[in-house]
Amino acid sequence: MAEINLRIPGPTPCREEVLEAVARPMMNYRGPEMAELMEELTVNLKRFLDTSRDVLLVTASGTGGLEATIANTISSGDRVLGVNAGVFGRRFCDVAEAFGASLRTIEVDEGLALDPETLKSTLHQEKNCRAVLLTHNETSTAVAHPIEDLCRVVREESDALVFVDAVSSLGAMPLPIDELDIDVVISGSQKAWGVPPGMAMLVLSEKAWKATELATSPRFYFDLRRYRDAQARGTFPFTPALPVIYGLSVALGFMLRETPEGIFTRHARIAARAREGVRSLGLELFADPEHASSTVTAMKVPEGIDESALVALLRTRYHTVYARGQEGLRGKILRLGHLGWVQEPEIDAALRALRSALADLGHRI
Amino acid sequence: MAEINLRIPGPTPCREEVLEAVARPMMNYRGPEMAELMEELTVNLKRFLDTSRDVLLVTASGTGGLEATIANTISSGDRVLGVNAGVFGRRFCDVAEAFGASLRTIEVDEGLALDPETLKSTLHQEKNCRAVLLTHNETSTAVAHPIEDLCRVVREESDALVFVDAVSSLGAMPLPIDELDIDVVISGSQKAWGVPPGMAMLVLSEKAWKATELATSPRFYFDLRRYRDAQARGTFPFTPALPVIYGLSVALGFMLRETPEGIFTRHARIAARAREGVRSLGLELFADPEHASSTVTAMKVPEGIDESALVALLRTRYHTVYARGQEGLRGKILRLGHLGWVQEPEIDAALRALRSALADLGHRI
Repeated sequence: MAEINLRIPGPTPCREEVLEAVARPMMNYRGPEMAELMEELTVNLKRFLDTSRDVLLVTASGTGGLEATIANTISSGDRVLGVNAGVFGRRFCDVAEAFGASLRTIEVDEGLALDPETLKSTLHQEKNCRAVLLTHNETSTAVAHPIEDLCRVVREESDALVFVDAVSSLGAMPLPIDELDIDVVISGSQKAWGVPPGMAMLVLSEKAWKATELATSPRFYFDLRRYRDAQARGTFPFTPALPVIYGLSVALGFMLRETPEGIFTRHARIAARAREGVRSLGLELFADPEHASSTVTAMKVPEGIDESALVALLRTRYHTVYARGQEGLRGKILRLGHLGWVQEPEIDAALRALRSALADLGHRI
Repeated sequence: MAEINLRIPGPTPCREEVLEAVARPMMNYRGPEMAELMEELTVNLKRFLDTSRDVLLVTASGTGGLEATIANTISSGDRVLGVNAGVFGRRFCDVAEAFGASLRTIEVDEGLALDPETLKSTLHQEKNCRAVLLTHNETSTAVAHPIEDLCRVVREESDALVFVDAVSSLGAMPLPIDELDIDVVISGSQKAWGVPPGMAMLVLSEKAWKATELATSPRFYFDLRRYRDAQARGTFPFTPALPVIYGLSVALGFMLRETPEGIFTRHARIAARAREGVRSLGLELFADPEHASSTVTAMKVPEGIDESALVALLRTRYHTVYARGQEGLRGKILRLGHLGWVQEPEIDAALRALRSALADLGHRI
């Protein structure tokens, strides 16, 4: 079987060295080997993220990280402001609502970014807002929200906690966590980190830790204080997904050698190339170009092309997996992931495959 | 470095073939390859467990499985009956209490099993009990509770839901889920399944599914209805820990070839050998021999021996990792894990290592 060019916005392909680490034998996660590994991991995560805050690792998907964020900081009845600009912004809102938050949602057309002015004027009307839920990179629309401006607006206009879903951006796009004083940042191992799925990462501010003491939402497995306390003892409160931990320690070594700046530049460069390539096929980009994501590119499916036939053809004949549109965008867009361990040749190959598959389906470029 | 004989009750060593699978490249978990893999996995899990019920896989540790159980079926204020016979029985109670359950706890001395008569008389006093939380194998004390009798007592005496924490027993010790009509059974990939940690397994009855519609506890990531609905479409609601999924599919093949009965017999035989070996070293078993576990054996640390020195010596000089006592049993017992992919030689080697380490510390046998 030919190798698959997996071009979805996560899980992302892993380096050979990372997969070798993933297959390491099991260990006692309460023993001294784990304490050593955890020390190395947390030092390197903090160094890569340029944060002085603790970085916690929780066995769950990114959505589990969103749930942990809400469950630890929000009580039923708390006023929460969210943003509906796509599947993942909505999801963050849905999690908060599931935990009883009184939700106000800013609606943003899919493909567009949230305007900081809109956030500002909404916050003026929401004096008792407990938390603002932001998405850095909206994976479903390939939009990168202007996260720095948005975080600053919240800090200037409100005492609310600021949570940033950075699941598909952290490690690929700059996010100065300490400088912006974000209260909780959430990421996932299978995205920019180039590691298999299984662990969510969370970075909490002191203000967020204080909120964990006040919040009355039920939690046990997701009680982040347990992770913080266990980490101080060099372990986890509950058995972690060891293969992901092993892989992450190796991936982080590569990432530190490339440097955060090197990685951010590479992602921006490859994303620009992807967008240019899409346009050169005569396809229309879905996201506002001023707020195009560096980790995923969305394109409209051309008129007259059956999206499911296109996706199947790409996969079976060209060994290339694109991501389909989600929910309301199903059938209307295709998404090309370019995050984590990715270089130009994979993107060029994916675009060549798309050109050929479109031609096979009779589309003229 | 010499290979480690990892003899803790999970994570358990994995076969070479399982670790090879664990390192497979990433895939689109929403694509047709996953649908195929999931179909194979669920058919094989149901076959192995001899159940007609759905078996769900959730990215989390076993404790995450306990939390999912409670969050989906229990509402704040519900009366719940639990059993405190060790760390894991207590943990199940703590999770229920975290979700607002009004808890009644049966206290059982550590090392002993819950007497079905005690459960019966307690249930007589608890007419409005919503759920009974049982532990099949109490990993912290190496006690296997008489789970079949206990489940029957609940069914005969009460309308309560029956939940069984089978994290460290399912797949190693018999548990006729459908026949006993257990409402939720929870297991974890890193135990008898011989697969790395990262996925919890849950088996729900129709009655449990009905309870999920009534329960008001907040949940989103742990909302099991999402997993059931996604499974029907051949996928997961949230990105699963792919390495564990890959490993499980291979491990299950081996397990089906060995047959459940073959595996149960092997575990019982090896456990008996472990207990005999411990006694032959002049050490005292911790658990009531009538209710000794087939997956882990606990022994008392002999008078005058420094447990932490013993554990360190075993690890560094004899490359053997025993599990230490947890919480109140720290320093008092050692535990020898024998579940999953284990044969006699590993147990014999672990016992030889223990004999040597004890001798090194001046203990006379």
